[in-house]
Amino acid sequence: MPMPQLSPALLTDRYELTMLAAALADGTSERDCVFEVFSRRLPHGRRYGVLAGTGRLLELLAGFRFGDAELAAVRAQGVDDPELLAWLADFRFTGDVDGYAEGDLYFPGSPVLTVRAPFGQAVLLETLALSILNHDSAIASAGARMVGASCERPCIEMGSRRTHEESAVAAARAAVLVGFAATSNLAAGARYGIPTTGTSAHAFTLLHDDEAAAFRAQVAALGTGTTLLVDTYDVEQGIRTAIEVAGPGLGAVRLDSGDLTVQATRARELLDALGATETKVIVTSDLDEYAIAALAAAPVDGYGVGTSLVTGSGSPTAGMVYKLVERDGVPVAKNSEGKRSVGGRKRAVRRHDADGTAIAEVVTAGAVEPRDGDRDLLAPLVRDGELVDPCSPAEALAAARDRHRVLRQTLPAEAFSLMRGEPVIDTVTA
Amino acid sequence: MPMPQLSPALLTDRYELTMLAAALADGTSERDCVFEVFSRRLPHGRRYGVLAGTGRLLELLAGFRFGDAELAAVRAQGVDDPELLAWLADFRFTGDVDGYAEGDLYFPGSPVLTVRAPFGQAVLLETLALSILNHDSAIASAGARMVGASCERPCIEMGSRRTHEESAVAAARAAVLVGFAATSNLAAGARYGIPTTGTSAHAFTLLHDDEAAAFRAQVAALGTGTTLLVDTYDVEQGIRTAIEVAGPGLGAVRLDSGDLTVQATRARELLDALGATETKVIVTSDLDEYAIAALAAAPVDGYGVGTSLVTGSGSPTAGMVYKLVERDGVPVAKNSEGKRSVGGRKRAVRRHDADGTAIAEVVTAGAVEPRDGDRDLLAPLVRDGELVDPCSPAEALAAARDRHRVLRQTLPAEAFSLMRGEPVIDTVTA
Repeated sequence: MPMPQLSPALLTDRYELTMLAAALADGTSERDCVFEVFSRRLPHGRRYGVLAGTGRLLELLAGFRFGDAELAAVRAQGVDDPELLAWLADFRFTGDVDGYAEGDLYFPGSPVLTVRAPFGQAVLLETLALSILNHDSAIASAGARMVGASCERPCIEMGSRRTHEESAVAAARAAVLVGFAATSNLAAGARYGIPTTGTSAHAFTLLHDDEAAAFRAQVAALGTGTTLLVDTYDVEQGIRTAIEVAGPGLGAVRLDSGDLTVQATRARELLDALGATETKVIVTSDLDEYAIAALAAAPVDGYGVGTSLVTGSGSPTAGMVYKLVERDGVPVAKNSEGKRSVGGRKRAVRRHDADGTAIAEVVTAGAVEPRDGDRDLLAPLVRDGELVDPCSPAEALAAARDRHRVLRQTLPAEAFSLMRGEPVIDTVTA
Repeated sequence: MPMPQLSPALLTDRYELTMLAAALADGTSERDCVFEVFSRRLPHGRRYGVLAGTGRLLELLAGFRFGDAELAAVRAQGVDDPELLAWLADFRFTGDVDGYAEGDLYFPGSPVLTVRAPFGQAVLLETLALSILNHDSAIASAGARMVGASCERPCIEMGSRRTHEESAVAAARAAVLVGFAATSNLAAGARYGIPTTGTSAHAFTLLHDDEAAAFRAQVAALGTGTTLLVDTYDVEQGIRTAIEVAGPGLGAVRLDSGDLTVQATRARELLDALGATETKVIVTSDLDEYAIAALAAAPVDGYGVGTSLVTGSGSPTAGMVYKLVERDGVPVAKNSEGKRSVGGRKRAVRRHDADGTAIAEVVTAGAVEPRDGDRDLLAPLVRDGELVDPCSPAEALAAARDRHRVLRQTLPAEAFSLMRGEPVIDTVTA
């Protein structure tokens, strides 16, 4: 009954195979092609984007093969061209991939990934590359705004239950990439070596005969450093009970309902009055970047963020596309209404002022006259099908997290406004 | 370098393990518990919801185990309570699950899934159950509106590239469940036996020296029944070239840009003038239920839907929660501000008028006085840990699709309005 685990090669739109079959038949499948991934615009009102997912894509690339099970699966769907099936059986990616480093910023038109390979190879990667980059970049871009609004207080990702079970793992990764301190998701901890946290739900209190019994059980099992959830019945009584049970050394209380500014202020006052001056106040409950910003002046020590993070805070996909820009060295572009593309393989440079603040994203198929403060944005990721810098998933994430922390310092201050506006730097295409 | 495939048991929030450890220590883990999954409200303005994901959850339940790899993974994250680890090693679900049948409708408060088991077992399933039901129901609920707006014209799911690569597979499944005719996603075809389709992208045209060469290649490989994408350069010329190459028996043309009403009308006129009166017009390009409805009067033969479907058309998660409602036979409920719950295991009945149209969702922990036209909504899915009705993933989906098609006929006509409004029937809790 359980399905065999199929390779990532099947996480692909059927039309990639159809195009490949037709290209094999007329001899164009070997034409040297350059595809670029970019986004025509940022989500409505966002000031910058954060590229995420490149590491996950590179992880999956080696396993992107059509073995017997995958070939049987496509045959069962009526894909029966013998030349195509033979080609797929032998397929392995032998091309080159360049890209923005994961964790870097991006803007409209930024060529965040460039794939150069014979058409047949490059076209096959479209769906998987876009799925990963669109999802992970959407989450990272939303998460970065939350971290920016948090005034350096820790944010914890806890949205697994609000998104597909595997998206949850990728969302946790993207959140940590942009500065979240930890996740609730055990699989993300296992795959990426990131910290996981979690204490208890209302159900744990309701399981017990009374709140005090629940708190005693939790403190006995986890020590007084734990976080007690105090809003199951009455917050004030919950806090009093928590301190009676755990003593003034209790690690934290968690508030998950009501007006969090009011609740947090009252909780802090009460904790202080009870002598629990070091006990932290953690808030959760449908937080997004705006709610986090609104709590800046409240006595809050940490944020648990769920739904809004894993759904991209109103922008659940980054809108990136994968477009053919060069064929046998010739720039090509479509002219479709509202979706015109610019031919030719792009170079991308971020221009900075003397203080190191970003001032422009220069994206051009032509030459760029170098200036002081320019930084080349595209780096080799894959050469002849081999990873340039093989590393573990955990290493890739840690490097991207460090990189993002540094690069976000180069953004102009306006980038961190939550108000809607234009991208904080212009993309210059000349 | 590749990670071992970990079991679904790790797709879980850490706090489930923390609660379990504390409950094992104080003896409450064996208390007989009933948890219910429900949504407090429908997404803003929606008139009904469609339950999806139950079949996927049941598929994963048997594999929800902690083997050596999973135990090592949680230990590496600091979960080191010996009693907990021993319990996890022996864990298998032995409880009961009841639920609404997949594909049924739901409304605020509908208890779409009920889990009865000792606390330790039931609490472990929270995250996975919610991840699956929240994602799949969000997609199904959005997709149902699209199908409803489509005037029986076929809708094709093609959003894989706009969502996480595994969400894409689940989204394709949910779309077909609510009446989409096919998907672009090969893995969904393989796992669920659903039709896959796909022809070509703009890249295929750009790959060739000119549009005619691309069309010739596609027709040679796929026959004249194929769908040619005609908007890479100029739509009118594209259509002329398509018919020159394929003849008037061409299967379809696809339009992916511009004002689709205008484009479709012109395309139809031109095709008819060229004698291609049977050639269909398929439209794609950022369609949602509103755009589909706006095309009702246009000469369109099918819709390809991507981004909006896989992101739930503005509501990417269904907002379902998993709440403890009974412990050792005693109703329990939390009193948190704005998040109060109702204690006691619920019965659920949908009430219908003499014409078979739904008029109320009756959800109560008490008795329901039966009336003509009542339908019990909860059915046994798992007994003593075993599936009541084991079936293949494809069979489960086919049954849910058939069920949904029948049940949507019981909705009042106002349900199919795309205007924002209240849920189309009231949930009665008395």
